[in-house]
Amino acid sequence: MSVTIAFSNADIPRGFTFAATHCGLKKRKLDLALFVSETPAKAAAIFTTNRLQAAPLRVCQAHLRQSRGKVRAVIVNSGNANCCTGPRGLAASRSTAASIARALGCPPQEILVSSTGVIGAPLRVEKILSAVPELIASRGSDVAAFENAARAIMTTDTRPKWAAVKCTLGGKPVRILGCAKGSGMIHPNMATMLAYVVTDAAISRAMLQRAVRSAAAPTFNSITVDGDTSTNDTFAVLANGQSGAPKITSKGRDYGKFRVALRQVCQSLALAIVEDGEGAQHVIEIEVRGAPSDRAADQVARTIAHSSLVKTAFAGADPNWGRILAAAGRSGVAFDAGRVDIWLAGIAVCRRGQEHHFDERAAHEKMLEKRVPILVDLRSGRGRARMWTCDFTQEYVHINASYRT
Amino acid sequence: MSVTIAFSNADIPRGFTFAATHCGLKKRKLDLALFVSETPAKAAAIFTTNRLQAAPLRVCQAHLRQSRGKVRAVIVNSGNANCCTGPRGLAASRSTAASIARALGCPPQEILVSSTGVIGAPLRVEKILSAVPELIASRGSDVAAFENAARAIMTTDTRPKWAAVKCTLGGKPVRILGCAKGSGMIHPNMATMLAYVVTDAAISRAMLQRAVRSAAAPTFNSITVDGDTSTNDTFAVLANGQSGAPKITSKGRDYGKFRVALRQVCQSLALAIVEDGEGAQHVIEIEVRGAPSDRAADQVARTIAHSSLVKTAFAGADPNWGRILAAAGRSGVAFDAGRVDIWLAGIAVCRRGQEHHFDERAAHEKMLEKRVPILVDLRSGRGRARMWTCDFTQEYVHINASYRT
Repeated sequence: MSVTIAFSNADIPRGFTFAATHCGLKKRKLDLALFVSETPAKAAAIFTTNRLQAAPLRVCQAHLRQSRGKVRAVIVNSGNANCCTGPRGLAASRSTAASIARALGCPPQEILVSSTGVIGAPLRVEKILSAVPELIASRGSDVAAFENAARAIMTTDTRPKWAAVKCTLGGKPVRILGCAKGSGMIHPNMATMLAYVVTDAAISRAMLQRAVRSAAAPTFNSITVDGDTSTNDTFAVLANGQSGAPKITSKGRDYGKFRVALRQVCQSLALAIVEDGEGAQHVIEIEVRGAPSDRAADQVARTIAHSSLVKTAFAGADPNWGRILAAAGRSGVAFDAGRVDIWLAGIAVCRRGQEHHFDERAAHEKMLEKRVPILVDLRSGRGRARMWTCDFTQEYVHINASYRT
Repeated sequence: MSVTIAFSNADIPRGFTFAATHCGLKKRKLDLALFVSETPAKAAAIFTTNRLQAAPLRVCQAHLRQSRGKVRAVIVNSGNANCCTGPRGLAASRSTAASIARALGCPPQEILVSSTGVIGAPLRVEKILSAVPELIASRGSDVAAFENAARAIMTTDTRPKWAAVKCTLGGKPVRILGCAKGSGMIHPNMATMLAYVVTDAAISRAMLQRAVRSAAAPTFNSITVDGDTSTNDTFAVLANGQSGAPKITSKGRDYGKFRVALRQVCQSLALAIVEDGEGAQHVIEIEVRGAPSDRAADQVARTIAHSSLVKTAFAGADPNWGRILAAAGRSGVAFDAGRVDIWLAGIAVCRRGQEHHFDERAAHEKMLEKRVPILVDLRSGRGRARMWTCDFTQEYVHINASYRT
C-alpha cells in the first residue's frame, strides 16, 4: 500500500464521476468542479474553525444533518468565496445545490457545495447555474476528468494536487482518491483548504466520521503556510461501497487498514499544499521531542512553524538556530532552555541550549534542499509532535499584496 | 505638555550623562552605549516574557533585587545578544557590570546590562571591557551625547528613536527623556525592544514600578511588527530626583501628571518602532470597538495585527476588508459576523458583515498614506482596544532572509 501521485484509471474508485468547466467566475481558467457518486454515498466532513463561515459551509452542515450523511455530489466553484455575502449568499449556495440535485434526481440535501476565492464580493450564481447542464453532461470516470476537477478548484495554487491509494479489504481491492487546493490562508485546525476524497470502500457513517477526524489531525491540521485561517475550508470524504468489499461497521482489522490508507492520502495532499505554499521554496518539517506532553510538543512545534523570523531565515537558507529556540521560548510551554538540543537539516547546531560547533557552509548547503528537517529535543519529557510549514519568501508578499489587482 | 522629538539641552533631565563608542562588536558603527545617573536613581524595569532569557536579563533581575531598585547606570551593547551563551554569557554580563561599577565607584548591583544582536554566538566581552575607560571618560550631558547613545543601541533600525516630555510637578520643571531600538522580533507582552527612559523626577520605587507597568501596557505592549518575541527585551526607567520637585510617594495629582507624561514618551517611542518596522511602509492603527469586553477587543485587535494576509494587503494598499473580518473570525472571540461594521482609512467598507459599496480607487489612494487606521465595530458589547502594526513587505523578507550574511 503506497501513495500514488501518477495514478491511472485503475485507481479511480468505482461508481464515481467527475467534471469541470469554465463558467466565468474566473477570467479564463476552469472554475467549476463536480464530484459525483452515481449511487448514494456515506459522507463525513470537517469545516473551518473560523467563526466567520462562508455561506456554502452553513449549507453543507445543514444538508449533512438533514440527509444524515447521505451524499450524491459535491460542487465546487473557485474565483469567489461566497463569504460575507449575507442572505443572498446563502440563497446562492442553496440554488446551486438544488440545480445539481434536479439534474441527478436526488433531494438537494444530498448535495454539498464549496466556494473559494475572494471574500466579500457577491457570487454571480447565475453563471454557475447556466453551466450546470454542461457540467452534468460532461462527467467522466477517467483520470482526465478527475484531473480537470482538481484543477478547477485551484486559486493561487501553481499546480493541482492529488493522491491515490489502494488497499485490500476482505480480499477486495478498495480505492481511495483525493484532491486538494490551498496555498495561502493555510493554518491548522481545519482551516486551510479544500480537500475531497472519494472511495469505493463500504463503511458506516459513524466509522467514516471517526476515520476522517483521525486522518485530519496529523495531516491537514498539522500544516501551516501563513497562520491565517480561511472562512471556507472543507475536507469531505465520500464512500459509496461500490468496491464490493465487506462493510466496515466497527473498529477492527479492515477499519485499521482503511484508516491508514485514508491518512496516507491526506498526508500526501497536505504536504503537496505546503510544497505549493505561496512563494515557497522549501518544506520545513518540524519535529519536537522531549516535551512535557504531546500537547506541549504540538504547541512548541506550532509556534516555530508560525515564526516569521524562522521562516524568513529558511528563505535565505540561514542556519539561524537561535530564532528556533527563541520561538520555542515564547510558546508558553515550560522547559529548561539549558537542556535543549537542536538539529537543523540533520546537523547538530545547538547542544544544551548553546551553540554546538558546526560547519555553517555545509549547513547552508543542506538548507538549499527542497525538504529541510528541524528536530528540537527539549529533554523535558516524552511528548512529541510534528508540523510542516514552508519558508517565507518575497514572492509570498508579492502574491498577497496584489491578490485582487 | 507635549512630546518633543526635536529636543534641546533643556530637555535633558538633570544629573544624567550619556556616552557611546565603537568597541568592535559591529564592523564600524557605534555598538556600546552608557546611561549614567550621577547620583543613585530609583529604577523600575520590565523584561521579555520569552522563557528563553538572555544572560544580561538574568543579571539585571538579580541586581534590581539585590540593590532594591537602586541604579547608577545602564550599559548596552549591540551586535551580539549574549543569549544561549551558557555560564560564560552570564560571566560576561557580570564582568561588564563590575567594570562600570568600579569606574563609577558603586557596587556592581547598581548597574544594569543589556545586549542586542545575534543569538547564540559567544559575546567577545573583552572588547567591551577594553572600551569602558574611554566610555566613562567621554560621557556628556548634552543632546549629542544622548543621540549617540540612542544610535549605539540600534541593530536593523534605520534611524535612532527618542522622545522627550517636560511637566511641572510642585511648581518645578521635571524632564523625561527616552530612547528605544527595535524594528524586528517585535511582539507585544514586553517582548520587543530595548527602551531606556531617564527622568529627574523624584519618585518612590513602588510608584515608579506602578507608573512603568501602566505606561507599557497601551504602548510597548500594544505594538507588533512580526509576532516574534525577543529574548532580550528590556524597558527600564531611571528617576534620580535631581529636578528638586517634591517626591511622589502615593497616587495623587503629581503621580497622575507623571504617569501621563511617561506614557506619552513611551507612546512616541512605540510608534517610532512600528514606523521603523523592518521593511515597513505604513503604520496600521487597529481599533476594535463593540467587543464583549476590553480583553476580547484586545484579542481581536492582536489577531488582526498578526495576520500576514492583512499586513501584505496593506503593503499593496489593497482595501481587502474580507481578510480583516476573517482574522477577527479566527481570534477565538465570540461575535455575530452579521453585525460587524468595518472602516478602512476612514471609509465604510463593510456594514453588518457585508460589503458596503465604496470607491475602491479612493480607498486605495488613502491606503497609500503613511498612517492608515482600521476601525472594527463588532456591535456585541462595549469592549475596546487599540494595536499598532506595520505592513508586511518584500523588504521585511529580504532583511530577515539575509540577516547574518
